[in-house]
Amino acid sequence: MGFRVAVCGATGMVGREMLKVLEQRKFPVDELRALASARSKGKELEFQGKRVIVEELTKDSFEGVDFALFSAGGSVSKEFAPYAAKAGAVVIDNSSAFRMDKDVPLIVPEVNPDDAFKHKGIIANPNCSTIQMVVALKPLYDKYGISRIVVSTYQSVSGWGKAAMDQLWQEVALVSVNPGMGAEQVKDALRSGKQKQVLAHPIAFNVLPHIDVFSDDGYTKEEFKMINETKKIFGDDSILVSPTCVRVPVLIAHSESVNVQLKKTFSSIDEVKDVLSKGKGITVLDDVENDVYPLALDAAGKDDVFVGRIRPDKTVKSGLNLWIVSDNLRKGAALNAVQIAELLASRR
Amino acid sequence: MGFRVAVCGATGMVGREMLKVLEQRKFPVDELRALASARSKGKELEFQGKRVIVEELTKDSFEGVDFALFSAGGSVSKEFAPYAAKAGAVVIDNSSAFRMDKDVPLIVPEVNPDDAFKHKGIIANPNCSTIQMVVALKPLYDKYGISRIVVSTYQSVSGWGKAAMDQLWQEVALVSVNPGMGAEQVKDALRSGKQKQVLAHPIAFNVLPHIDVFSDDGYTKEEFKMINETKKIFGDDSILVSPTCVRVPVLIAHSESVNVQLKKTFSSIDEVKDVLSKGKGITVLDDVENDVYPLALDAAGKDDVFVGRIRPDKTVKSGLNLWIVSDNLRKGAALNAVQIAELLASRR
Repeated sequence: MGFRVAVCGATGMVGREMLKVLEQRKFPVDELRALASARSKGKELEFQGKRVIVEELTKDSFEGVDFALFSAGGSVSKEFAPYAAKAGAVVIDNSSAFRMDKDVPLIVPEVNPDDAFKHKGIIANPNCSTIQMVVALKPLYDKYGISRIVVSTYQSVSGWGKAAMDQLWQEVALVSVNPGMGAEQVKDALRSGKQKQVLAHPIAFNVLPHIDVFSDDGYTKEEFKMINETKKIFGDDSILVSPTCVRVPVLIAHSESVNVQLKKTFSSIDEVKDVLSKGKGITVLDDVENDVYPLALDAAGKDDVFVGRIRPDKTVKSGLNLWIVSDNLRKGAALNAVQIAELLASRR
Repeated sequence: MGFRVAVCGATGMVGREMLKVLEQRKFPVDELRALASARSKGKELEFQGKRVIVEELTKDSFEGVDFALFSAGGSVSKEFAPYAAKAGAVVIDNSSAFRMDKDVPLIVPEVNPDDAFKHKGIIANPNCSTIQMVVALKPLYDKYGISRIVVSTYQSVSGWGKAAMDQLWQEVALVSVNPGMGAEQVKDALRSGKQKQVLAHPIAFNVLPHIDVFSDDGYTKEEFKMINETKKIFGDDSILVSPTCVRVPVLIAHSESVNVQLKKTFSSIDEVKDVLSKGKGITVLDDVENDVYPLALDAAGKDDVFVGRIRPDKTVKSGLNLWIVSDNLRKGAALNAVQIAELLASRR
């Protein structure tokens, strides 16, 4: 009746969130396999009130599995996803390993659900910062068309994993008793305390215009993801994206300042708000008179993409400014992956 | 030989920074008057190793004063600056009270020094977020021309005064022992502890797309300042600015993600870096291979405007993306004001 579901990278932040989301959304799971590296073998997790023992991920882990949700990094996906697909499972991969592969659909269920059914065993889950942006832009794209996007992000540390969250907490504790420390002093203090620093610089009370690795032309891989994935998800190479991706000292939920030039003009900002509020997966929070706009602290733990500060950009003909916030672990990762599984299950 | 200088609002964050900057830059001060509200009368400050007793600001405070530096809020400036000007002092006003007054020059010494000499007793110091942006854009404006700017800011809490810094510290302490609190829970906890909340929402581990008050069209006053002040400082109403101003949990120094469309095209990004590095008051920090780019934590306490992440925006013909960081209390306020005084003093 239900499905056999494997979660690869089950002990990681997104993996744990996947178990939570599968349970919360009552996805019909007959059997759950929690897979991880040898190091995590034997660990206990909880699913639907029962203990689940973590098994080691091997190429033989996927027999009889219907859906294999991967969130254990690109190299693990590259190595093991093909075995899962060969065993007959549909892989839904949260890493960047296959996203730009032309044989792999890149899916956001609110945006391009039909593409999911063209899969050849592997479906890719887009990058967190891309997902929330395209969900918010989808109704605008459908009604007006989109020519160009300039986006600056305010991304939480959980997007870089649990170690980055730990780094933020350690630095907050340090700077709280030593205010006025510069970046190098914070680094040295953590180093002498043998505390792990996974971000390039301190993030507490700081802002880093640096997510993922830099390429030769000065853009980061995170920024490339926003450019390329947006085009692929909309199936429209004409959409221009100019991104700057920035890490901020927030634990969960990414915020984005999005400037968008539409192809057709809107008749009023109320019309735009109406179009957005009817969009799938979107909650409009825009009542600035009462200080209502999306906040990372409130979006954490929620499913929707929140949109506010909806204003005309008066410097161009059909321009808009938007403030888009969503939980990067949920809609930006685990929830979107489970929604893809739901989508496939619905048309089985 | 030197000057008689009055600092109005001397006990505030910017006022104290003004005393520090006057001393550090060896501005020739013969007499310093520290002025503040009646509440602060009698407080002691230090200047050039000597005690200075704070006097109450009255309309008679300015006799014999050469420069009156105001940083006590718009209403204080509106009330008392005219008395200072009438008494023969040159007012350099850090509030927004007179900035858009057509008889009041709005000055950034690196950008429009000559305008300073057209004053009629009052000169306005621009808003912090505007100052650092126009300093960085000035050499590009001169060489290429600028048609449009899309800017998203990452502004520190010190821009909203000491009470906002206190709010951040209190919230950090609270959330550190209660992680997972939502915005309303943080607010309620502070309220029940009778702790002052000067920002509309919690700022610790959060990001607020809200600086200063909202106007009817959905833009904030801070955003209007960036639009209008940029045009006035460059003396060019054709420059289009589309801003989104955001508060981040940083103590000192504002960061800005600036997308700029130039009128003439640049021949290479190295040329742009060269032009920027020759600009006044600018330090280029751009070596991404070694994780070098401007950081708020490092810019705090420094004088320059730091520019990095200098990249072509490939979505338009002559587009650039820049990351601009500077100390909002120094170049964004106190330093710029003292530099205006130096400029006037230099041509006396």
